[in-house]
Amino acid sequence: MAAPIENQTLAMIGLGNMGIPMARNLLSSGATLTAYNRSEAPAQALAEAGARIGRTPADAITAGGIAISMLSNDAALEAVTLGPQGILAGLGQGGLHISMSTVSPATSQRLAALHAETGAQFVAAPVFGRPEAAAARKLWICLSGMGTARARARPVLEMLGQGVYDFGDDPGAANVVKLSGNFMILAAIEAMSEALALGEKNGVDRHAMIDFFTQANFSCPVYKSYGPILASQTYDPAGFKLELGMKDIRLGREIVETSAVPMPLADLLHARLLSAIAKGRGQLDWAAIEHATAEDAGLK
Amino acid sequence: MAAPIENQTLAMIGLGNMGIPMARNLLSSGATLTAYNRSEAPAQALAEAGARIGRTPADAITAGGIAISMLSNDAALEAVTLGPQGILAGLGQGGLHISMSTVSPATSQRLAALHAETGAQFVAAPVFGRPEAAAARKLWICLSGMGTARARARPVLEMLGQGVYDFGDDPGAANVVKLSGNFMILAAIEAMSEALALGEKNGVDRHAMIDFFTQANFSCPVYKSYGPILASQTYDPAGFKLELGMKDIRLGREIVETSAVPMPLADLLHARLLSAIAKGRGQLDWAAIEHATAEDAGLK
Amino acid sequence: MAAPIENQTLAMIGLGNMGIPMARNLLSSGATLTAYNRSEAPAQALAEAGARIGRTPADAITAGGIAISMLSNDAALEAVTLGPQGILAGLGQGGLHISMSTVSPATSQRLAALHAETGAQFVAAPVFGRPEAAAARKLWICLSGMGTARARARPVLEMLGQGVYDFGDDPGAANVVKLSGNFMILAAIEAMSEALALGEKNGVDRHAMIDFFTQANFSCPVYKSYGPILASQTYDPAGFKLELGMKDIRLGREIVETSAVPMPLADLLHARLLSAIAKGRGQLDWAAIEHATAEDAGLK
Amino acid sequence: MAAPIENQTLAMIGLGNMGIPMARNLLSSGATLTAYNRSEAPAQALAEAGARIGRTPADAITAGGIAISMLSNDAALEAVTLGPQGILAGLGQGGLHISMSTVSPATSQRLAALHAETGAQFVAAPVFGRPEAAAARKLWICLSGMGTARARARPVLEMLGQGVYDFGDDPGAANVVKLSGNFMILAAIEAMSEALALGEKNGVDRHAMIDFFTQANFSCPVYKSYGPILASQTYDPAGFKLELGMKDIRLGREIVETSAVPMPLADLLHARLLSAIAKGRGQLDWAAIEHATAEDAGLK
Repeated sequence: MAAPIENQTLAMIGLGNMGIPMARNLLSSGATLTAYNRSEAPAQALAEAGARIGRTPADAITAGGIAISMLSNDAALEAVTLGPQGILAGLGQGGLHISMSTVSPATSQRLAALHAETGAQFVAAPVFGRPEAAAARKLWICLSGMGTARARARPVLEMLGQGVYDFGDDPGAANVVKLSGNFMILAAIEAMSEALALGEKNGVDRHAMIDFFTQANFSCPVYKSYGPILASQTYDPAGFKLELGMKDIRLGREIVETSAVPMPLADLLHARLLSAIAKGRGQLDWAAIEHATAEDAGLK
Repeated sequence: MAAPIENQTLAMIGLGNMGIPMARNLLSSGATLTAYNRSEAPAQALAEAGARIGRTPADAITAGGIAISMLSNDAALEAVTLGPQGILAGLGQGGLHISMSTVSPATSQRLAALHAETGAQFVAAPVFGRPEAAAARKLWICLSGMGTARARARPVLEMLGQGVYDFGDDPGAANVVKLSGNFMILAAIEAMSEALALGEKNGVDRHAMIDFFTQANFSCPVYKSYGPILASQTYDPAGFKLELGMKDIRLGREIVETSAVPMPLADLLHARLLSAIAKGRGQLDWAAIEHATAEDAGLK
Repeated sequence: MAAPIENQTLAMIGLGNMGIPMARNLLSSGATLTAYNRSEAPAQALAEAGARIGRTPADAITAGGIAISMLSNDAALEAVTLGPQGILAGLGQGGLHISMSTVSPATSQRLAALHAETGAQFVAAPVFGRPEAAAARKLWICLSGMGTARARARPVLEMLGQGVYDFGDDPGAANVVKLSGNFMILAAIEAMSEALALGEKNGVDRHAMIDFFTQANFSCPVYKSYGPILASQTYDPAGFKLELGMKDIRLGREIVETSAVPMPLADLLHARLLSAIAKGRGQLDWAAIEHATAEDAGLK
Repeated sequence: MAAPIENQTLAMIGLGNMGIPMARNLLSSGATLTAYNRSEAPAQALAEAGARIGRTPADAITAGGIAISMLSNDAALEAVTLGPQGILAGLGQGGLHISMSTVSPATSQRLAALHAETGAQFVAAPVFGRPEAAAARKLWICLSGMGTARARARPVLEMLGQGVYDFGDDPGAANVVKLSGNFMILAAIEAMSEALALGEKNGVDRHAMIDFFTQANFSCPVYKSYGPILASQTYDPAGFKLELGMKDIRLGREIVETSAVPMPLADLLHARLLSAIAKGRGQLDWAAIEHATAEDAGLK
């Protein structure tokens, strides 16, 4: 039986716009929290909220304890995990690494194997939800990795989101689901973009169309959050930057390739993102792929 | 001020698997109902429920009253509307035709003009929802046409669905929304199909993936109804036949062409449907476009 | 045995930028030529070259003789063929109609049947080649229709082109080949467009790339004629107007639909044309679909 | 002034099905040839024809001389080039490496820089043409790299092909052209595949269609070589294996990504190849992507 979470020391590695609200939620749930971030400013804010700040990932981690990482990409995750001052060194025998970044399944599988070599455990627990959802403990979390590790990770994750979904023993599985989900979100954006352009050129008001669908058969978060953005064509400031979305779609393309799954819709989305980058739109919200549809229809 | 609906005589033209439950709902709401159907069997069932059956559309309609049509395509709608025994002849001056079929906006515009010539009114009111939804008064209804006609149609439509959404004076507008919505539904089917194939080839359970998304950020009717069908890959019996779906996508392609709106995702969906038809799958549910994704990935 | 062609009277129906040089070649081959055109100016020019000008198609045609038609589309072909003063009326029993327009196979099949009813014959003989090629007798001609009619048409066609290729008894077959060929030409344009954009963004000179391919493994008329146009991105004046190309691709899409042949590359090309039309480029050469590739790559 | 080629010692590194006929041509042109291959059997055959065989790349190369490499991919090229017994070590100051493999432009640029550091030169000289073309000195060769190196390489390359085309100083430029050309070839294969399926389902003979186009406006090597293969749908034995074609398209996708050039036609071709691999067709000729078109049309 795991100790009650409030008696454990948890280490949060990575204090970006997702890591910070997650760390605050852990603190407010009563956990003793240590933290590490490459740059100091975010750590300072968290220190004021009661967290101890480590000088290195290893320094922030209690041997045999739990480290939670939330980094921007595979390279950053590997950088904080490996090496003499990394998460792996800090965890040691009996430790658990809950990796919540959006990374490739291959990275999770490789890191899980490296953890196993040292007697530590690794689970992948990527999330759906923007920073506001993280702050409101409204994340949806996909979890995969060895069974005992998943059981140990679950109470921690339940402090961070509104649902934890189990995808089995393969540490890469949760990442596959995350990448698939991002693909499905962007597919919904493209579908709405094309429908709105068709409507607009046929005299239908963009907002009326979105209001209808998001109250009727598309009444779910993805359509409700992106629909109004697409109706108003406002992509700045970005909720999720297009160039980060491209990173995720590229990770998806790697598994498309290794597992030989032709995905013509994913190819279309990738081409949309690539064109947006070629046109200098990488800093906009990734829903800005809509510009291409409007332009192709002569609407701009 | 319109008379209370329960004091009006309504005519239901077209008693297919949508028209029948809709007619029953009108009856049970207290309306006096007459009905017409090309073949007799469905009419007989409705007669037993209390409707008077007309020998022709015109015969079923009270002059100056309200006719509701629900037919399978543009040609069928035109056939029951025009001619000496058609809806238009039966309605006469002051009548209202509520056209609920999925037809092209051009057909609605043409029919609206013809109705105006005789002093009758025409509104388009296509619906989203399958026969079960029709029976449960859970349809979502898009409404467009001249303002006074929309106002007169609304209380009738409210007996048939859970929401009536207004798209203005252009009688074709509601059809544009309907065709756009069918495109968005099929786009969602394609997105799930590709995501599921990617998951499956990477060891993720199809049902687990759908369970997750339909509880999380895709928790809306379209995903909840099609997700499990796609997870289990069961397309027979059809909820909505693929060849009917093709009809709707073709109607959509007409307005794509006349309004010059390139829709690459719609092209992909059309190719999926066309291939399914080439392979003899026209009688399956239109979600059977998923077969192509699985086959392309070598999963069959 | 057919009479030597120089002893026959031939009627040329349609004196556009293809029909005029073809008519001149018939005259200079020694044929007695009559001609008809809807507008008078082109006919006048031909009259000066020795042709008799008819007031109607029927008036231009010798009963039992040969009429050659070259019109801009299906509707124009049907307009000059049917009716009391049409080609069919003029030809009568024993006449032959050589239809060289780019029309749908269904139109050829329908017209062939109508000709057969009056004892006349109909062959489809669409061509590849621009007006300069027509003037130089360098057209490539696809021929199909009933065997005896083909044999009678061949010596006439040999005065007009550099090769006559036989596609059998189905009068629609030659049209299928023509539409397929136009698709292949536009596919080559798209392929070069994408390759040139890739080259340009990687520092390779557009003209050097085209020079190479058109001297090496792509040393054929399609690449040699369109390659330099694409390298220099000069689409005005048009050799073949984009909006006419769209007409042909639309005819192709009809048979895609009726014969259920998914053609994703054709869909891409159609979307390119449609976007060009939406952007007001219908009067440019159809190679101007290249603009889309350059724009998507941020090159404009 | 370079020494006459017949007085030079040339080293051929890589004796696959392209390297062998190229080496034989160098020998028969009077060059003194040394050679190296990872496996011994091919080297033995060449030894009998008069070449000296080296135990390592460096051993086969004369210091300051010319090495020609023809390997299967980037990794193989790097393996024979770098390291203490590699090409670079063997060439030393004043040597020239003519790299004829199909590799990424980035690999050529990196290797060129490494050669420059040791006072040697590197040019990229990838080729178009199959082994038969290599044997017949009918290759088309793209050349790029520093000007003096290109001038020195040219007479060697002229012994190997029917044309050497100059793409300037960037050592990666020739590779960009090669990858673009492979894309254009596969695009032609796809275009023919779709046209043939459309023809076949409309009753047009596949061979008749190819005969026509390859005599008319598509009378060039790519269409003449692949057209009959596609008409007869015979992909075994492979002239160019599908899985090797996939390698080249993947190299192309890398520069698509780094240079941000959306290429929807290339995406389609990649999906075709990927599906063929998923279906176990990697050992067939890459024209076997045609199967997908036929299958999608219900022709199999």
